[in-house]
Amino acid sequence: MAYFSKHYHSPGTAPGTLVSTSPSTRPVSIHLIDYTEENVEEERLASPQECQAYLERDTKTWIQVNGPVNVDTLRTLGDMFNLHDLALEDVLNSGQRPKLELYDDQLFLIAAMPILQDDALEIVQVSLFVGKNYLICLCPLEEDPFEPIRKRMRNPSNKRFASRDIDYLLYALLDLITDSAFPVLEAFGDKLEGMELELLEQPRKQTLSDIHRLKRELLFMRRVLWPQRELLTTLMRVEDPLINPDTLIYYRDCHDHSVQIIELLESFRDMATGMLDIYLSSISQRTNETMRVLTIIATIFIPLTFIVGVYGMNFQNPDSPWAMPELAWYYGYPMVWGLMIAITAGLVWFFKRRGWL
Amino acid sequence: MAYFSKHYHSPGTAPGTLVSTSPSTRPVSIHLIDYTEENVEEERLASPQECQAYLERDTKTWIQVNGPVNVDTLRTLGDMFNLHDLALEDVLNSGQRPKLELYDDQLFLIAAMPILQDDALEIVQVSLFVGKNYLICLCPLEEDPFEPIRKRMRNPSNKRFASRDIDYLLYALLDLITDSAFPVLEAFGDKLEGMELELLEQPRKQTLSDIHRLKRELLFMRRVLWPQRELLTTLMRVEDPLINPDTLIYYRDCHDHSVQIIELLESFRDMATGMLDIYLSSISQRTNETMRVLTIIATIFIPLTFIVGVYGMNFQNPDSPWAMPELAWYYGYPMVWGLMIAITAGLVWFFKRRGWL
Amino acid sequence: MAYFSKHYHSPGTAPGTLVSTSPSTRPVSIHLIDYTEENVEEERLASPQECQAYLERDTKTWIQVNGPVNVDTLRTLGDMFNLHDLALEDVLNSGQRPKLELYDDQLFLIAAMPILQDDALEIVQVSLFVGKNYLICLCPLEEDPFEPIRKRMRNPSNKRFASRDIDYLLYALLDLITDSAFPVLEAFGDKLEGMELELLEQPRKQTLSDIHRLKRELLFMRRVLWPQRELLTTLMRVEDPLINPDTLIYYRDCHDHSVQIIELLESFRDMATGMLDIYLSSISQRTNETMRVLTIIATIFIPLTFIVGVYGMNFQNPDSPWAMPELAWYYGYPMVWGLMIAITAGLVWFFKRRGWL
Amino acid sequence: MAYFSKHYHSPGTAPGTLVSTSPSTRPVSIHLIDYTEENVEEERLASPQECQAYLERDTKTWIQVNGPVNVDTLRTLGDMFNLHDLALEDVLNSGQRPKLELYDDQLFLIAAMPILQDDALEIVQVSLFVGKNYLICLCPLEEDPFEPIRKRMRNPSNKRFASRDIDYLLYALLDLITDSAFPVLEAFGDKLEGMELELLEQPRKQTLSDIHRLKRELLFMRRVLWPQRELLTTLMRVEDPLINPDTLIYYRDCHDHSVQIIELLESFRDMATGMLDIYLSSISQRTNETMRVLTIIATIFIPLTFIVGVYGMNFQNPDSPWAMPELAWYYGYPMVWGLMIAITAGLVWFFKRRGWL
Amino acid sequence: MAYFSKHYHSPGTAPGTLVSTSPSTRPVSIHLIDYTEENVEEERLASPQECQAYLERDTKTWIQVNGPVNVDTLRTLGDMFNLHDLALEDVLNSGQRPKLELYDDQLFLIAAMPILQDDALEIVQVSLFVGKNYLICLCPLEEDPFEPIRKRMRNPSNKRFASRDIDYLLYALLDLITDSAFPVLEAFGDKLEGMELELLEQPRKQTLSDIHRLKRELLFMRRVLWPQRELLTTLMRVEDPLINPDTLIYYRDCHDHSVQIIELLESFRDMATGMLDIYLSSISQRTNETMRVLTIIATIFIPLTFIVGVYGMNFQNPDSPWAMPELAWYYGYPMVWGLMIAITAGLVWFFKRRGWL
Repeated sequence: MAYFSKHYHSPGTAPGTLVSTSPSTRPVSIHLIDYTEENVEEERLASPQECQAYLERDTKTWIQVNGPVNVDTLRTLGDMFNLHDLALEDVLNSGQRPKLELYDDQLFLIAAMPILQDDALEIVQVSLFVGKNYLICLCPLEEDPFEPIRKRMRNPSNKRFASRDIDYLLYALLDLITDSAFPVLEAFGDKLEGMELELLEQPRKQTLSDIHRLKRELLFMRRVLWPQRELLTTLMRVEDPLINPDTLIYYRDCHDHSVQIIELLESFRDMATGMLDIYLSSISQRTNETMRVLTIIATIFIPLTFIVGVYGMNFQNPDSPWAMPELAWYYGYPMVWGLMIAITAGLVWFFKRRGWL
Repeated sequence: MAYFSKHYHSPGTAPGTLVSTSPSTRPVSIHLIDYTEENVEEERLASPQECQAYLERDTKTWIQVNGPVNVDTLRTLGDMFNLHDLALEDVLNSGQRPKLELYDDQLFLIAAMPILQDDALEIVQVSLFVGKNYLICLCPLEEDPFEPIRKRMRNPSNKRFASRDIDYLLYALLDLITDSAFPVLEAFGDKLEGMELELLEQPRKQTLSDIHRLKRELLFMRRVLWPQRELLTTLMRVEDPLINPDTLIYYRDCHDHSVQIIELLESFRDMATGMLDIYLSSISQRTNETMRVLTIIATIFIPLTFIVGVYGMNFQNPDSPWAMPELAWYYGYPMVWGLMIAITAGLVWFFKRRGWL
Repeated sequence: MAYFSKHYHSPGTAPGTLVSTSPSTRPVSIHLIDYTEENVEEERLASPQECQAYLERDTKTWIQVNGPVNVDTLRTLGDMFNLHDLALEDVLNSGQRPKLELYDDQLFLIAAMPILQDDALEIVQVSLFVGKNYLICLCPLEEDPFEPIRKRMRNPSNKRFASRDIDYLLYALLDLITDSAFPVLEAFGDKLEGMELELLEQPRKQTLSDIHRLKRELLFMRRVLWPQRELLTTLMRVEDPLINPDTLIYYRDCHDHSVQIIELLESFRDMATGMLDIYLSSISQRTNETMRVLTIIATIFIPLTFIVGVYGMNFQNPDSPWAMPELAWYYGYPMVWGLMIAITAGLVWFFKRRGWL
Repeated sequence: MAYFSKHYHSPGTAPGTLVSTSPSTRPVSIHLIDYTEENVEEERLASPQECQAYLERDTKTWIQVNGPVNVDTLRTLGDMFNLHDLALEDVLNSGQRPKLELYDDQLFLIAAMPILQDDALEIVQVSLFVGKNYLICLCPLEEDPFEPIRKRMRNPSNKRFASRDIDYLLYALLDLITDSAFPVLEAFGDKLEGMELELLEQPRKQTLSDIHRLKRELLFMRRVLWPQRELLTTLMRVEDPLINPDTLIYYRDCHDHSVQIIELLESFRDMATGMLDIYLSSISQRTNETMRVLTIIATIFIPLTFIVGVYGMNFQNPDSPWAMPELAWYYGYPMVWGLMIAITAGLVWFFKRRGWL
Repeated sequence: MAYFSKHYHSPGTAPGTLVSTSPSTRPVSIHLIDYTEENVEEERLASPQECQAYLERDTKTWIQVNGPVNVDTLRTLGDMFNLHDLALEDVLNSGQRPKLELYDDQLFLIAAMPILQDDALEIVQVSLFVGKNYLICLCPLEEDPFEPIRKRMRNPSNKRFASRDIDYLLYALLDLITDSAFPVLEAFGDKLEGMELELLEQPRKQTLSDIHRLKRELLFMRRVLWPQRELLTTLMRVEDPLINPDTLIYYRDCHDHSVQIIELLESFRDMATGMLDIYLSSISQRTNETMRVLTIIATIFIPLTFIVGVYGMNFQNPDSPWAMPELAWYYGYPMVWGLMIAITAGLVWFFKRRGWL
């Protein structure tokens, strides 16, 4: 995960310039669902032009474009649905902040969907255009994450989509996008728990970089999900004919989840930050213990080594009574041992009293 | 206590899907109190259908459902009292944020009741539905925590419940839920005091994990009680026919307690965070002391050991006057002792001046 | 000072339950001042019932109840002056947040007066009831802290109290309560200065717990004085017939002091928090110095000890020219000394260059 | 980069005093573009007086003054275009906060353009005066940073500039100024990544000062870009005849970028701050490892050295059976080796169990 | 600089009590400027009573009182200009928060002027009373800091003061007071730069207390300048006949400076706080280096000393082939040297690989 993950045009580029950042040569995969109260029609299109037919009908149409979109497709869609240049530019320049733009008879939303790929956080930018009876959703993932919704639509007993306007479909998509943070947070929670255990038991060097990486991921996730929460707040308050008042209760539910996600992120971040302090304290504690072992060993043996050194001296003057007479004493050697045992006992007692042993 | 404690449906699940997270097979325990100004009737029901009879009467009815609720009971209650699907889903998915939903002629509240179980914090999610003349309260605890209120209701001299609308009962329940934070905070305060003493006297490795755990509990408690305070603020300001203006003074009292609880939590958290710094400082202080002991011992004995080493050398050249003549001096040995005592005295004086002894 | 200092009823207790937390058996001490524009009458009453006489007159009456109040006195006063049950409960449950309640023709205030007792911070809860022509002030202290105000009232040349309504008396009391934070803060400032000096000169273990205690006291004081500031803001903005517009300038002055106190508290807290860092840095600096002494001593003597050890070896083979021939050299011993002096000089030069000596 | 980078007049100087801080002697370089819907005229002027001719025509004129401006040029422009004295003073006193001043028929903006020069952040102050049909832009850089815009204007197929009022030109300039933060942030992101790797792998002393420098640059950049964001917010909300409602969508886009830049800055700063903790933890971890090596070596060899010291003692009393009889034992020497090997094995086992080896 | 720098009356003192905190016996120094559009008259008065003459004229009068003011002068001025008692009390009680009081036909301002005295920050409290055609400014400094303004007034070509109302003079004074923070901040910036260099190169014990002192000064300065900024905001928004709309542009300029000063203070404080972390990291780094030197020396020499100790043992049993036969080997001594060189080489290689050498 890069620190700077935004794509941008060189400063001074004209607004609305469309340059693809990942020029893919594969054809686009367009999944279209056309539905009315009676009927749900589903089709896979090869080119964006084929949407034209559905546009003219008086049915609700969901156009799902999966995989990295190329400039041509985008421009075709832009012309067909009258999409604003600045919006199209945002679709291509990934790494945008979630946002909501109100055009005359269109809503443009950028939403951020957090997913885990190979145990690493990735933020997928989903772009949504909503008109009176169509919704275009562009998602750079190859695999369509919105399959669960399509499944609900296909279910003939489920009349919710059919009986409601296109804003209910928008809600369903946004709800899925928002809720996809929960599995990610669950994985993060597990990681935190693992780290916490490791920290208190056996801090390793690796733990430090693990904490750091998680903190970065939390920070990054919060940076994109915070404006997403704002987006949902705005959607709930906006007075736009495209948003029906009776869908609001669903948006409120979605917003509640969004708030809960942010709160979880905040507290995870708090905990991750606190873990660095624990790491430091834990290391200091271990250094202190290491020191104590060294000090005990050294403090006991250094005086003893000195004593045996004394009696290793070679002072010899047969005429002098002062030339290490101890060496010739009858009990000299046992007495030295006695002295050394006494010193050791004294130091052990001293360390015990200090609580070091 | 898990980092991630929320139950959620897999993203893309239809709103209002009811799946029990803890499928209990035991029958539900329903405790019903039906009261008017004159009379208090109390009954234990075996199935939710039996409530029907009370619903039709013009009396105030409190339906208390204890223990983990199963999907069937919930659906029956939902049909009978016309409860919203999204609300029922929230009742089952525990770990929700406290919230207040205003439906047309109903209030739906989720409240969080902190309790201590085996010295560990637990947040119990209490769900409340309030209608014109009924209140349904669902609490996953086996043992009914609201017994004190029932006791007050049974007291014939207490006319408060009887003479007031159902919103006074709601207040009584919310007041009990809010106030149950006080014993928890008292226990936390005692823990903090214990830790503080331990930290300053004798920091152990265990202390570190104790602080960390308490910090997590405080963080967790704050995360759920903060929106609970908001809920009470909203209740005080909401203009809903179900809330009488003359009950407001009681809600205000309850809100005051809630504010005080948050403030206590904040300052406890501040103190717990500060304790990590104290732990670190305390450990560093101890390392410094250990170091000082080692340095004193080593600095005194290392030179002495060197000296006795010198006179342990075996230079012998009978022809040389330079071959360690000291060894043959008459006062050689006492002179060496004199030198060593002088060095020791000098070092002791040096350490005293530095304030190390 | 306890972490958890609030008195509370067990959750589920009926609102307005009066239970004394410190059942004192001593009779209450009631000090009454009855004043008009012409006259100031002062009396000590033995029982609350005696207030009745003054209540009926058209004079301003200040009823000061000192010492821990018992339930009976409170109930008598409550009945006589028509005080709200919830308010009376708050008077008894000490450790309340400062607050202002507006009743129909009465104000109820809880104020927090910080004082120092035996060098420890104590927050005294003063409860005030203000009516059209009476003010009841309950203060749990034995000694009356409001004597300076009484002195001003007795002064016949001071017409301010006499010529103004009861809200001026309220101001005078609140002003004294607010300003009593200044001597406390002055004492704290002195303590901080002392600690700072100690920290930078000679950090002791005791310093750590002193800082911690002061931080707790500052945190605690801020927690109660912050809502007191809000209370004064509300008093300035409230439109209540009991508060005259021309007293507002005095309330504003009092509010200004309150703001200044909070700001001082905040910056004291900032400094106290910063001191922990200084303590840690200071200890680390000392550890580093200790280490340096040890390293210098050890680094110089360890090689020397090795050298003298070499020549303490007993290799002897009269036939071998390799069996420590140095021992038999004519200048062997002085050469060893020369080598050792050279090594010492080299190391001293090395340490000098590193700036360690 | 200096901590204090603002130019100011000595306190008490009259407002509007013009003193150049960097008296350049070179002639000014003025680049003028005069454009209408049909035509784009471009010219380089030698003196500000030559602008006069264009001012009178009914065309849109962009006057770009590059390089450090001198007092005379400024005064000439001031007289010609009726610029306010306080604004001119701000142009000369570099290091101003970005701001927007609304005069009667003129806008005055100070914008901050971050660029990297020799790998160091520099904030260039761009001053803009906007009137009904002219825009004066003063930029202290020698090389014109706005060339990309001029290129777009020269393109005959681009009718945006020609067909819109002068506020579109203002947008284009502000957009370029805002977006020039992206390359700077990209470079900072790369630096952060490098530091992070270094910190976790091999923290050097230099890393500490690198982090510190980056933190200062981030802090500095945030200090000037924060008010720039406010400026753009104000521009979007201001009701001024010079700003057309249909340009607002462009300003909103520019504002969005500005918000994203601030958010990136904030999270970079968070990461940089966290890195100091990682550095400290990393160093502590290394100290702990060093200590462990020392302790293992010392703890193993100190007892061994003591033992060999014991048998280096010279106790000799031919008559005493206590005078180190071990020395004369048949297997004395191998037994000592056995003892020493046993001790070493014991200690190695002890260290293994502690996880130190 | 004291932590608690406020003068206050003992709690319970009557509002408006005037007690001088520094009873000076020197006569007051009053500097009066009386000016109209045509004429500027300047005079030094010996007593406040002499102002009376100017008060009655229809001219603008600036009364500047320098040095510590005594109670009598203040009371005379108070009576003459009808100044409020609470305001006079504030003038005497130095250490007030900057504030603005609107009286009926008068403004009362307290402003804080930061200056450096002997390299230490001092906050001078300037009190200003503004009436229809007079301005009284009381400044406790002996030397008049407002001389630059007087110089501008004396300049006959400068018609700004003469042609405008008294509020322009107020602006000029406030502008000078505000801008006097710039030289102080410039000095602080230089100090920070010096400290930073010292910290990264050679942290000394003194550095710690320098950082701490600077942090305190920044904290203190921010505490008084923050409300000063508010004061200027209020002045810009207040609708008072004493403030003319066309002076507002000047007040806005002054407010801009004030904002910039606060921002600088904040970022200086951030940097000073960060420096403590750098100090700690730097010390830890040094401790680690010291440790490394010790460990290298000890780890190399301790095994060698052990080896030479082995061959210093006195095992002698002429009959035993096990009694240290090495001592009698022909190449015994060179072999020991070979062993020791091999060990040293091995350890040096080990340290190189670890990056310690």
